[in-house]
Amino acid sequence: MTDTVVSSATREVVLGFDRPFVIIGERINPTGRKLLAAEMAAGDFSRVEADALAQVAAGAHMLDVNAGIPLADEPAILARAVRLVQSITDVPLSIDSSIVAALAAGLEAYRGKALVNSVTGEEERLEAVLPLVKKYGAAVVAISNDETGISEDPDVRFAVARKIVHRALDHGIPASDVVVDPLVMPIGAINGAGVQVMRLVQRLREELKVNTTCGASNISFGLPARDGINSAFLTMAIASGMTSAITNPLHGDIVRACMAADVMMGHDPDCARWIRRFREVPPPGASVVGAGDAPRGRREGGMRRRAAAASGTPTPGGN
Amino acid sequence: MTDTVVSSATREVVLGFDRPFVIIGERINPTGRKLLAAEMAAGDFSRVEADALAQVAAGAHMLDVNAGIPLADEPAILARAVRLVQSITDVPLSIDSSIVAALAAGLEAYRGKALVNSVTGEEERLEAVLPLVKKYGAAVVAISNDETGISEDPDVRFAVARKIVHRALDHGIPASDVVVDPLVMPIGAINGAGVQVMRLVQRLREELKVNTTCGASNISFGLPARDGINSAFLTMAIASGMTSAITNPLHGDIVRACMAADVMMGHDPDCARWIRRFREVPPPGASVVGAGDAPRGRREGGMRRRAAAASGTPTPGGN
Repeated sequence: MTDTVVSSATREVVLGFDRPFVIIGERINPTGRKLLAAEMAAGDFSRVEADALAQVAAGAHMLDVNAGIPLADEPAILARAVRLVQSITDVPLSIDSSIVAALAAGLEAYRGKALVNSVTGEEERLEAVLPLVKKYGAAVVAISNDETGISEDPDVRFAVARKIVHRALDHGIPASDVVVDPLVMPIGAINGAGVQVMRLVQRLREELKVNTTCGASNISFGLPARDGINSAFLTMAIASGMTSAITNPLHGDIVRACMAADVMMGHDPDCARWIRRFREVPPPGASVVGAGDAPRGRREGGMRRRAAAASGTPTPGGN
Repeated sequence: MTDTVVSSATREVVLGFDRPFVIIGERINPTGRKLLAAEMAAGDFSRVEADALAQVAAGAHMLDVNAGIPLADEPAILARAVRLVQSITDVPLSIDSSIVAALAAGLEAYRGKALVNSVTGEEERLEAVLPLVKKYGAAVVAISNDETGISEDPDVRFAVARKIVHRALDHGIPASDVVVDPLVMPIGAINGAGVQVMRLVQRLREELKVNTTCGASNISFGLPARDGINSAFLTMAIASGMTSAITNPLHGDIVRACMAADVMMGHDPDCARWIRRFREVPPPGASVVGAGDAPRGRREGGMRRRAAAASGTPTPGGN
């Protein structure tokens, strides 16, 4: 069992093999959002505020905060965004930048134990980012690419992840504070990408005993009906042992898929979270079918049909 | 590799570990549908006809046909329903009854190689149903319960499945013509039911080398937002190696989940079926992002963001 604990000033979130899946909201990121980028560069953080609140309301357990705006003062903007988001929400943050000085500024501004996003297997990055992670007692996302780029061979990606975990140990950072991103390839280009990620997540869990995360939407790049692919990906990744993802909680299908996967994994005791979120108010006078009334036997062709008969599920097209 | 081939007069469908998932439409079943039961008993098959056509249009690869109406002449009604459905669709059928004489009548009326639904591990059923399956050269659903009922212990359910597979062999029916239903328990009552089924499906595949099916909706019995649970269940079951399910293709979420799972498993080459079904017509003049343009590298924090930037996915709440 590996628990990765992150926190805000007042709240802890734990990534772990036997824990509910952790959704890290991806929206506070100016990359590809020209209006947001312009606003943030001009000191207008109203959209950051709205995105933070909306994602938490929609089900995000953590928020990623990125301020990657070309030619802007990224360290200052990231620090300001971190402070702002922490002033209006209590979820832990992932501090996201490819610029080490921005990570340092974000960490300096942060209250609690942050997730640093990210370090790669590149020597220069390892030796720049890991000391920061250690200094601030943070956890870190380890992306399994290195100087040679991203290998299409999952064994190579595994080896890069192992190298980062070992190097983190050298810096006094335990494996439980390293969250590996196995790198999700677009399945439209590489049809084996799904099976590959599932095997890789399993290996990372069994051999390196680390928690995992990913940028879930990459899987569906270039395909139509992306939420359908993303939902299937997340469900299967969770079944393989993935413990978090950086994704968009404003897409209802995504949150529903993650919550249903928690139910399926037995990580939602008595399905209490599911029922609380999706409970329908029964019409007046209707009898409520509870989980306790569930059928336990199937003889004479029974259970499948009895369940269908008793479910109260609306019948498309009528009787 | 185990292929289970079923057929109508003109079309084959194959259940197999490396094949797309097979959806068996469950709607033609009067259990719990009072109006349908009354109509079928009175010789009105218009709803059967409509249900057959609608399910195939929605994505069913096979149809289950059941005529279990109390006090009615089930063998005659089932035979008539089989003939009718075969006259208007070309998908193979699952002939579904707990009455042996009805199975015999349905098989006699059927053109092609049917799937008999079902035999259990009960001595009397084994010795009544398996000779019929052999006589008509059919395949058969083997439900893993016996005289003692349904065990909550998946090892016992596995043992019952093995017994049925061996008994079928004694009757000259190869394991490839036995499709095991591991029995899905309601997860609202048994929180471990999801993990249990996944392990069981894997064992059935690896040790008995059989194809599998299930009544998928049992998993969500008694819970709200059942399609969400059913979709997660089917996605995970497919990841574990389940090769078919008896379910409701008129629920769009279910078909989408199964098709997305096929993509994730690499069972939809070039995502061609997915793209055909879900392709959006681009607005005039818009450039189309194709799978071939997918990003292949991620440096400087790139792929996740680039994919998000280039995807064209609508941004909830605007920029």
